[in-house]
Amino acid sequence: MDRPMRVAVTGAAGQIGYSLLPRIAAGEIFGPKQPVIIQCLEIPPVMKALEGVAMELDDCAFPLLHDIILADDPKLAFKDADLCLLVGSKPRGKGMERKDLIRENGPIFTSQGAAIQAVASSQVRVVVVGNPCNTNCLITMANAPEVPRENFTSMTQLDHNRAQSAIAKKAGVLSREVKNVIIWGNHSSTQYPDWHHAMAGDKAAKELIDDAWFKETFIPMVQKRGAEIIAARGHSSAASAANAALEHARKLFQGTPKDRWTSMAIPSTGAYGIPEGLLCSVPVTCDGSGVPKLVEGVELNEFSKERLMASVAELLEERETVADLLP
Amino acid sequence: MDRPMRVAVTGAAGQIGYSLLPRIAAGEIFGPKQPVIIQCLEIPPVMKALEGVAMELDDCAFPLLHDIILADDPKLAFKDADLCLLVGSKPRGKGMERKDLIRENGPIFTSQGAAIQAVASSQVRVVVVGNPCNTNCLITMANAPEVPRENFTSMTQLDHNRAQSAIAKKAGVLSREVKNVIIWGNHSSTQYPDWHHAMAGDKAAKELIDDAWFKETFIPMVQKRGAEIIAARGHSSAASAANAALEHARKLFQGTPKDRWTSMAIPSTGAYGIPEGLLCSVPVTCDGSGVPKLVEGVELNEFSKERLMASVAELLEERETVADLLP
Repeated sequence: MDRPMRVAVTGAAGQIGYSLLPRIAAGEIFGPKQPVIIQCLEIPPVMKALEGVAMELDDCAFPLLHDIILADDPKLAFKDADLCLLVGSKPRGKGMERKDLIRENGPIFTSQGAAIQAVASSQVRVVVVGNPCNTNCLITMANAPEVPRENFTSMTQLDHNRAQSAIAKKAGVLSREVKNVIIWGNHSSTQYPDWHHAMAGDKAAKELIDDAWFKETFIPMVQKRGAEIIAARGHSSAASAANAALEHARKLFQGTPKDRWTSMAIPSTGAYGIPEGLLCSVPVTCDGSGVPKLVEGVELNEFSKERLMASVAELLEERETVADLLP
Repeated sequence: MDRPMRVAVTGAAGQIGYSLLPRIAAGEIFGPKQPVIIQCLEIPPVMKALEGVAMELDDCAFPLLHDIILADDPKLAFKDADLCLLVGSKPRGKGMERKDLIRENGPIFTSQGAAIQAVASSQVRVVVVGNPCNTNCLITMANAPEVPRENFTSMTQLDHNRAQSAIAKKAGVLSREVKNVIIWGNHSSTQYPDWHHAMAGDKAAKELIDDAWFKETFIPMVQKRGAEIIAARGHSSAASAANAALEHARKLFQGTPKDRWTSMAIPSTGAYGIPEGLLCSVPVTCDGSGVPKLVEGVELNEFSKERLMASVAELLEERETVADLLP
């Protein structure tokens, strides 16, 4: 039997964690034959609730789940981890600006980055889900300088799936029949969901659907989908965010289908005019090695370039805001 | 591609539903190649929240999910259903006796039984999860007299998994190495988790662990596990209950491994001294046909017989309480 893979999850007792953990234990990241050990990190006030979550995982008798570790110390939670899913972050409080949120969250990720470098597997892959995820990932990466840059990603899979599903509905096809949408930029309201290369069935989406719909309906729909969910459910997206985190990690470790791109924020090497080192969402493919590969040569028209650069400007501003946390 | 399987889920916007729906859509009941249509039933006051859940399912872009139907009318929700997972039921209110709870829930299941008979697939399988699940299943079955009896089951998989996991922990083996525990009786505090035939690795559990531990610790631990989860999490078991419902349904449609029993409440044919027609948990195997097969000839010692009969007595009492709902 394979050595169990160690998956560390932060914010494990939160709503996303509650949807995520059972599906990791069910084999949805590494497949139905790969045992896992789940290593949960939480803050001291919710350790009791985390114990309850762990009891429920026990009560599932998952065949693949070899152990559950509960910790409020990152050096325990990340010990020998093969994959760190950084889900936990402080939510935006009332009247708080995005800038305040970024400053509030920064210190969490400096210490997590340092702990990852100190104790995780030398092959560790780090996926940041907790918002603002691009900049949180930047901070984590900067504080773990010995971990290869390409092992860090942050998640825009939820936006990607939302865009894919919205096009499928509009085109009257199944979600699975839509491919190669792209999320460019920051996981924020400046993100740019790009339909220009998307296929719906065997047709280009832009041939099936008016540009006006994409510009006036589709873009704001994807950007503001989170708020729409909150209005309907009374709670923020948890199950779909957890699903996206699983899918992002599954693609890293099991690859993307041959003819399909996905979207991930990866450290820029300067391609597409994105400043080097920024964590920016781009189209990628995955070969199962745990390191995504940028899709090169995607054509950006003037509209697309403008949108991408607006989101990049926000990422630069966020980097400025946390400059003192980037050694 | 296969015809999609239609899965109706009641109480779909509840906590168990929220954990259950994404995993059904991910293929965890019928496997990774079988498309599904999820048909949700809810009560009118929570239809808005249900819409939010459906939006989140859309946002997962599940390759296997062909459609989501939302209804507050059982005749729409159960239309052509291949599988009905009856999860929704009224929770026990403050100061409410079990008898009151049974009377409160009864009418929900008379109308659902009638609707299932009227509109579901002639091959429909019905799994009752909502408590008191054995008696709710009895009512459903009695109100759908044209649906074959053997197509009805109610869920004791969560108790089964809890018992399996508790023995694994005590014996120092993995959950998957424990097999053939049995839950006998009612899904209530009178249930009898039977360890006498359980194996832990290649040894009989009863040879590894003292009888005293089973009688004094194990039985009450399994019976009262739900309350322990509530105390830790501050909420009742949802993820583990959803997982058990998936596992129960998966076993019905994909079978149990050759050398393993599971536990399900099935309509009694009189075996083991259980009065005919009662929905009582027993050891079963599944061949993937959707109809479980009783494991016959399991030896019950005096202690086991007594425990089983105590739970059967409660089931008889519950049947008495709802006699007017059983045409």
